[in-house]
This record gives sequence, C-alpha cells and structure tokens, in this order.
Amino acid sequence: MSTIIAALKESGDENRVAITPDVAAKLVHSKFEVMIEQGAGQNAYFSDQAYQDAGAKVVSRDDAVSQANVIATVDLPDSETLGKLHEGQILIGLLKALTDLDSVQKLAKQKVTALSFELLPRTISRAQSMDVLSSQASIAGYKAALVAADKFARYFPMMITAAGTAKPAKVLVLGTGVAGLQAIGTAKRLGAIVSGYDVRPASRGEVESLGAEFLTSSVSAVGEGGYARQLSADEQKQQQDELIGFIKQNDIVITTAQVPGRKPPLLVPQAAVDNAKPGSVFVDLAASDLGGNVAGSKPDQTVITDSGVQLIGAGNLASEMATSASEMFSKNVQAVINDVADKDAQITIDLKDDVMSQLVATDHGEIISERVRKALNLPISKPAEDDAAPADSDDKSAEKGD
Amino acid sequence: MSTIIAALKESGDENRVAITPDVAAKLVHSKFEVMIEQGAGQNAYFSDQAYQDAGAKVVSRDDAVSQANVIATVDLPDSETLGKLHEGQILIGLLKALTDLDSVQKLAKQKVTALSFELLPRTISRAQSMDVLSSQASIAGYKAALVAADKFARYFPMMITAAGTAKPAKVLVLGTGVAGLQAIGTAKRLGAIVSGYDVRPASRGEVESLGAEFLTSSVSAVGEGGYARQLSADEQKQQQDELIGFIKQNDIVITTAQVPGRKPPLLVPQAAVDNAKPGSVFVDLAASDLGGNVAGSKPDQTVITDSGVQLIGAGNLASEMATSASEMFSKNVQAVINDVADKDAQITIDLKDDVMSQLVATDHGEIISERVRKALNLPISKPAEDDAAPADSDDKSAEKGD
Repeated sequence: MSTIIAALKESGDENRVAITPDVAAKLVHSKFEVMIEQGAGQNAYFSDQAYQDAGAKVVSRDDAVSQANVIATVDLPDSETLGKLHEGQILIGLLKALTDLDSVQKLAKQKVTALSFELLPRTISRAQSMDVLSSQASIAGYKAALVAADKFARYFPMMITAAGTAKPAKVLVLGTGVAGLQAIGTAKRLGAIVSGYDVRPASRGEVESLGAEFLTSSVSAVGEGGYARQLSADEQKQQQDELIGFIKQNDIVITTAQVPGRKPPLLVPQAAVDNAKPGSVFVDLAASDLGGNVAGSKPDQTVITDSGVQLIGAGNLASEMATSASEMFSKNVQAVINDVADKDAQITIDLKDDVMSQLVATDHGEIISERVRKALNLPISKPAEDDAAPADSDDKSAEKGD
Repeated sequence: MSTIIAALKESGDENRVAITPDVAAKLVHSKFEVMIEQGAGQNAYFSDQAYQDAGAKVVSRDDAVSQANVIATVDLPDSETLGKLHEGQILIGLLKALTDLDSVQKLAKQKVTALSFELLPRTISRAQSMDVLSSQASIAGYKAALVAADKFARYFPMMITAAGTAKPAKVLVLGTGVAGLQAIGTAKRLGAIVSGYDVRPASRGEVESLGAEFLTSSVSAVGEGGYARQLSADEQKQQQDELIGFIKQNDIVITTAQVPGRKPPLLVPQAAVDNAKPGSVFVDLAASDLGGNVAGSKPDQTVITDSGVQLIGAGNLASEMATSASEMFSKNVQAVINDVADKDAQITIDLKDDVMSQLVATDHGEIISERVRKALNLPISKPAEDDAAPADSDDKSAEKGD
C-alpha cells in the first residue's frame, strides 16, 4: 500500500501551506499518495485545481486526518484536530515542541510520531535542506526590509533630481543570522546605507561581504547551536547602552533576535525608542506573545508613538509572503520525507540517526527529544544509545494507512 | 516690508506639506518671512518645533491666510479657505486648474494670482527645477515598485537556498515616463526581471539603460508636450490586444499612464485581469475618480478578484512617502519663488516669461493659461504678446502684506 502524505489547511491568519502543488507532484512521482485539504493552498495562491493537476487528491479535513500516514502542517494544528490523530501517524511541522508543552505531551499520549522543526539540529549539514527556521527566516528578513522601506516616509536610495538631492536612508539590522543577512542584503539592494549589529563577532565577514558595516558589542554572547545565548541583566544593560548610541544614528532599525522557545532579548529599550527621530521605523521580527526585541512593539500591529516613531510588530512575516514561504517550507518537508523514505515510498524513522534523534519530539508514546524532556523536567533519556535498542528503533516505521 | 510666504495644513488623507523646515530656513535666509499653519508638517514628520528652529512662525490657518502674500499648498485648499483669499495673493500648488474649473474661476474672480503646477511647461529646461509633477511622479514610481514587492507573495529576486532555488519575479511597467522609469529602476534593484512598455519608442534607451527590456506597441502615440496622446478606440483595441500578450507573461504590472486633467487610458482591460495568474499584482498609478489604467481598480483601495489577482489603486502614492515627497515638492516651490523674487525678496511675476505665461492660471481677475481658457471654451487670449502689454505685466507683483 502506498504511503499517504497529507497537508491541512492552516488556521487563523496563517497563509502558508506545508505542501505546494510542485512538491505534491514530486511526491506523487516518488510513489506517495498525496491528499490536500480543500482550500489549503488558497491563501498562498495555490488552487485546488493546481493540486489535482499535480496528481494530489483534494479531500475534506476529516478524510485527510483519518487516512494519512504523514500529515504536514506549517503550524501546530488546533486541539480538535490533534485529538483525531491516531497511533503511528507522523506529524511534521512547526509544532512548538519547546513552547507548547501540553500539546507535545498530548501527541506523545496519542502515540503520534511528531517531528517538530524547531528541534532540527541546524548545524548538521544534512539537516540544512530541512531547515524550516532558516528558509522562513530568510523570507522574514527580505520582507522586513520591504516593510521598512514601504512604511518609511523617505527614499531608501540616494536620489539626484532636478530639484535637488535626497540623502539615502540609514538602516541598522540587529542580529545577523539568516533573517538579518537577508534584511541587510535587501536594504542594500534598495540603496540604503546599511549596518549590521551582532554580539557574535563571527558574522563580521558575511555582513561586510554584503557591503554593510559590521557593528558589535563589547559583550560577547556566543551561545549553543549557533544561537545568541541569553545575556545576564548586567550584560544586557551594557549592550543596550552601546546600542542606544548606534540606533540614534539610524532611520530604520530591523531587529531579528528570536531565540526559539524563549522570551526574545530586549535589544531596543524604551530610551532608544524615545530618542529616535520622528519618522523612524522599527521592525521587530521577534514580536510575539512572549515579548519582542523592541520596547513597546506589539505582535502583528503597528504602534505609532507620540513622537512619530513607528514600531512594527512583525513576528510572522513569512505568512505575508505565503507563496515563496510555502515553496521553501514545502521543499524542507520534502527533504525530511526523502530522508526517511525508501525507493518504494515506505517510511522508516531511525531514532539513532543524528538528525532524526533530535527532530523527533514524540514517538511510540515517548518524548524523544532531549530538549523537550529538559523543558518538561523529565530525566534525559538517550533513546538512540540505550533506551531505544536498535531493534526497537528500526520498528518505528509509519503505519501504512487504514 | 518683507514678503510673507505661508504653507497650510493639507486636508483629508494628504500627508505632504508644501514647505519643509529646510526650505523655510532657506527662504528666511533669503529675507522672506515664513508662516506655517500649526501641525502642517506633522504627517510628514516635520514638527512645529522644527519650523520654529528654522526661523518660521507657526500660526493659525486664519492668520496664514489673511497675512501671507504667497500661499503654498500641495493640493487645492477647501472652498472655505479659497473664499478667504484676497486680491493680489499668490497661491502656488497642484491647484487642479485643468480639472476643477469652478475653483479656477473662483480664484480669478477673487483676483488671486494662481500658479498651478499642472500647467508648468515641463519641456522648458528652466522649469525642471519647479516640476512638481516630475518630482512627485518619481516618488510614486519608486513607491509603486515597493508596494508591488510588499503585496506580492513571492520573492522579487532569484533566491538560491539550501532547499532549492526561487525564480525571480517578472515585472512589467506600462508607461516609461518619470514614474515608470523609477518603478523599473526600483524593481531592478530588488532583483526582478523587468520590462518597460511604452507607446513612445523614444524611451527605449532609458529603459534599456536600466537593464530592463523595452516593449512597445505597433500603434504610435507620441503626443503634445511629451505626454502620450489619447488614442482612438481602434488604436486602443489594437494596443490592448498586444498588451494582453505581454501582461500574461508577468507577475506584476505597474501602470503609470496618467494624462493630467483627462480620463486615463485603460491599458489593462478586463480580459487581461481575468487571464492573470493567481497572486498577480497590478499597481495602478492612474487610479482616480476619472478612472484608471486597470479595469476594476479603485482609487486608494486594494481589490482582490475571485481568481486571486490584486488590483491596487494607487493614485496618490507620493502622499504615502510624505517626507521625501514634501522635500521635493518644497524645493520645487522654492525654485518658483527664486525665479520670481529679487534679492530683497520682492516678487514680480512676468506674464511674458515663457514659464510663467503658462504656469499662471489666473491673475488680476483674468484666466491667463491658454490650456485653462481652452478647457473653459474661452477665446484664446495671448496675454504675453497682445492683451497683456509689457507695462501691465510688469505690474503683476505681489501685494506686500497687509
């Protein structure tokens, strides 16, 4: 029997879809059966017809959930849908395994094999084609520069006209990971004078290669897995004081310091917002219910201060560029599936594998991910080496449909 | 007595201001007195304090209107304000002299000297520093590309990532005047594949120099004063059929065919909108109450069709980039003032002058502009040569305050 892969329609304001018609066609070509919930691609401009043309079946949500062996989603499905998942089903997506611990426990209880992209070991090179955080951060960084340029009431480039010369905008990007580098590159494309700030001095080369100036802090903050580590209060204070000086010299500040599953660091304190010139624009890619990088920013809102400063809470920009974002997301999903499928489209997840041992949040009723176990204060098991014997983990293949 | 120059707060959604603090400072330096209506610069991020620092007086609207010798505005003031203008006052702005004929007659009746930027002879090189239509079109073109990029759900540039390659967006700009060339340049900066279409083959060189492909029609449409002339119904049909072919091949279409004072030509007919791919974006810079270039576009609205095509009515984008737009506008106003003022800041408008004879809509109770006279079906007078004798036109200096 062929393995059935399904994508669901996302809820709320989420415009992306986890499988595009292009990827559906490739999966069908690789002998999978593909089911797409009706209207799943609509907000990303993929019609049901386009999926049918790709060889996918357009079905109801209930059919997708009950019949699929693998369900791909962008965000964690609502709890009603989670309640309908059954033993052995594989769920792949941004499942918030580090922040929505109730749901991850629920998934374990239902014996769903949950692959949560937040858990991907991003520094392993084989994992890079699966790296949703990276592909979506790239979109968000590009889009952040566009949003800033669109909201800013002046030109980004220098303009020489018959009536005189307009000076270029000055853009400061805080955090020079994937999103930051894209924001820098895009702001440079638009002709602004750009600088990139990071507490990790290692990114200097990349920033400078984009033609931007590299700024850093006297506080070093290199953390685990390539992320910036969380700073102490004193360090934050020192960093912020230095930053206020940098921010003052710019018209646009784009902040990109998201730390998956944690409260984002406050990079732009109230004093820096208060001191900003009227017309300044702050785009906060970390704006979320956990907080943001910019004092006073609100998720998915634009706040205009009394002094005429725009604070744009932009924590989910990828959803606003849903076609490209879905294309990238979908390719990442496809890379995971390719990684665990054989040539007959049968799926086996090896929990000893260096990538899968980390990406898998739950399997066979167990919390597998060490990071999730830590978050739940569970004893750190080592499924790949001890608890899960080879014979056991070889067993963890998907159920083959109903 | 010094000549008083005032700028008013614009009404409605207009964010621009006709005089910026920078230009105010320069006018003060040139011995003018400058009055700014309270809050006039606020929406363009110029504070009252900034004007005061520049040496201007911040005053009430009534004081500005009653005391000023020269009033600069972006748009035609409301009729209540027009009613308060008095004999000999000079009013400079986009006064709609070719389309709001009631107001222009009212201005003549009140013996206001009205300089309407729509009337500027744009091909005279001395007029170029006064060319508001050009400076604001430049803003609109830049902004149109940004709006398109921001609304488009895919990347503009080609992106090569770990998960695969995203192909660049295809952008077609219809009309390659100032706005069109800026839109082309900006879309190119953002990495799109850009083509520019114009019925005037003369713009080929400029389009190609920006790295874009030049497309043209088999119908020639070179008109007066550098504008595209209005086409016959048959010509429009032929042109549109060709265009439907071009449009089909693109993701983004930016239309820039404004003809001041006339209904804009329909460049994108319903069939082209219907045939566009889901996710396509049309930005219509001509969208106005008189119509637009794109079938179904509405002024200042985004219409999303059933097939997922976005029609963005963007007839006043300059107002949405109010700081730069005001800076340019204000420099254009300053150029007019410099042109008619002597070293003691006394103003004399010479109606025999090749620029002023056309820019001036009304003076001393007469409709001066031939284009306005034509629109009003008045006999074409020739004030500079016959009706207005030299002695008479030399007299047309501003009243020197109250």
